[in-house]
Amino acid sequence: MDKVLSGMRPTGRLHIGHYFGALKNWVDLQDKYDCNYFVADWHALTTNYEAPENIIENRKQLVLDWLSVGLDPEKCTMFVQSHNIYHAELSMLLSMITPVPWLERCPTYKEIKQEQANKDLSNLGFLSYPVIMTSDIIMYGAKYVPVGEDQLPHIEISREIVRRFHHLYNCEVFEEPKGLLTEVPRLPGLDGRKMSKSYGNAIMLSEDLKEVEKKIKRMLTDTNRKRLTDPGNPEVCPVFDYHKVFSTEDERAEITEGCTKATMGCMDCKKILMKHMFALLEPIQERRNKFEAEIDDIDEFLQPMQKKAVAQAEEMMIKVRKALQI
Amino acid sequence: MDKVLSGMRPTGRLHIGHYFGALKNWVDLQDKYDCNYFVADWHALTTNYEAPENIIENRKQLVLDWLSVGLDPEKCTMFVQSHNIYHAELSMLLSMITPVPWLERCPTYKEIKQEQANKDLSNLGFLSYPVIMTSDIIMYGAKYVPVGEDQLPHIEISREIVRRFHHLYNCEVFEEPKGLLTEVPRLPGLDGRKMSKSYGNAIMLSEDLKEVEKKIKRMLTDTNRKRLTDPGNPEVCPVFDYHKVFSTEDERAEITEGCTKATMGCMDCKKILMKHMFALLEPIQERRNKFEAEIDDIDEFLQPMQKKAVAQAEEMMIKVRKALQI
Repeated sequence: MDKVLSGMRPTGRLHIGHYFGALKNWVDLQDKYDCNYFVADWHALTTNYEAPENIIENRKQLVLDWLSVGLDPEKCTMFVQSHNIYHAELSMLLSMITPVPWLERCPTYKEIKQEQANKDLSNLGFLSYPVIMTSDIIMYGAKYVPVGEDQLPHIEISREIVRRFHHLYNCEVFEEPKGLLTEVPRLPGLDGRKMSKSYGNAIMLSEDLKEVEKKIKRMLTDTNRKRLTDPGNPEVCPVFDYHKVFSTEDERAEITEGCTKATMGCMDCKKILMKHMFALLEPIQERRNKFEAEIDDIDEFLQPMQKKAVAQAEEMMIKVRKALQI
Repeated sequence: MDKVLSGMRPTGRLHIGHYFGALKNWVDLQDKYDCNYFVADWHALTTNYEAPENIIENRKQLVLDWLSVGLDPEKCTMFVQSHNIYHAELSMLLSMITPVPWLERCPTYKEIKQEQANKDLSNLGFLSYPVIMTSDIIMYGAKYVPVGEDQLPHIEISREIVRRFHHLYNCEVFEEPKGLLTEVPRLPGLDGRKMSKSYGNAIMLSEDLKEVEKKIKRMLTDTNRKRLTDPGNPEVCPVFDYHKVFSTEDERAEITEGCTKATMGCMDCKKILMKHMFALLEPIQERRNKFEAEIDDIDEFLQPMQKKAVAQAEEMMIKVRKALQI
């Protein structure tokens, strides 16, 4: 069975943007591939080295979110990057053969440095990020890495590092990973901007449903539709963006007609969204409650999977050291 | 007892330049400090990643050379860097807080890049070298690192990384290492240039004594002294450089008089050197033969010491992870 690898940084509880942007896909993939999903806590340090205080708690919340959406320990391997220090050994060895200019030219490197200009990102770890990521991927012989298009340059660096390693040491140790571009709907924040916990425009997967209801009720709609009798325009309404993801085609047709002909009020429109939102969140939160009650120590819970990941890494490192004759 | 750490790259058998430049000092230090000496095989990759073929054999020869000069497993801890992968974990974590400009400004970084212009040293591992070295040192709480003056900037970077770590994570985990400047005589090569195996001007610690005799006999002397009856000048004679390291003050006085007054021939002068050279090398080679006969597998021989080093590293990493709350 082909292998898939992906990871997430432990930066807090996940929201429905993460669900549609990645997790839903992860859940689908676990039925088709040998999937490895890891908590990228070292990655979190590459940009957040100055304030890593909540990594342990966030790690726990992240795994609970994963379980709550349906990632299944029987079907995939979930583990913590920093608990498998072979990732550091492989990163160290790959650093020897990775030209610094490859890293400096990486588009996301430049972008993030510009975006987060208020942060000091001159640290070696941030520059090294694509090498660390490469070691995560190739450690498990992952053939596919589910990514957005913006992440493709990182996969390209990984492929180049693999080719260089094979060329220099005259071997075939690693799989050359490929990006697995899956179409995922982009869900904007409640205010139409990018969904982000820090913007306060997100609905968290574990958020109290009463709070979710309030948030949806408060959502802005087409600002030109001041009264129920004014016709509205779904294409400029943030709520309709959600219907594109949540509702059926029939419902969208009904809403479009009701809105543009002023026969359906915004609250009724939102009620349709709420129905779907609850249908998504209720089973997720039920599972979360169940796992939260069952799991006392998340590391202990992960241990069998962690062991499996470490065993795979050990096997790979034997081959790598042999190739390097070290 | 204060701790000392030092390492050597496994690049081949050692010569008498290494002995006077470092090993003699290492042997002295093992009586006064808790010394940790390591085979820096990952370091060898920072500049020799393209041709690491002999690392395993060189590792063995290096340790045999160490034992032959008198490093004593009862007194110091000898181990292999790449067999203690916590060094990679600590390097990874330190990379997060180390500004790239600190590394680029490091004088040895610029120097080696210039000196070895024929090599492609744009690799990340070479840039990261001071971080890897810092992790080697502070992993063991080393208070002192025996270095030459040219190595002091590296120790300074280590001290800065330690201070930054303590400041960022509000802790006191590491010892701030100090350079231990010990006066060591510089022994030139047989031709007066820097002693180097690749120049063919070195006497190896394990070199056949007949070969050593031939090499000394062939050594150039004061080129102006063509005949025995010509007076010579010891200050321009490469052999006299050796007498400065090997011979007693009385012998040097005798030689100086005999040479400048043309009463002593070059061969008699060389015989005095040979006597001392053999007195140094014979017991070294005897010990080497003994250890070579005894030690079947060098890794097995090192194992108790390696275990001790790994246990120390494990203890340190618990503190480091706790400080980072990871």
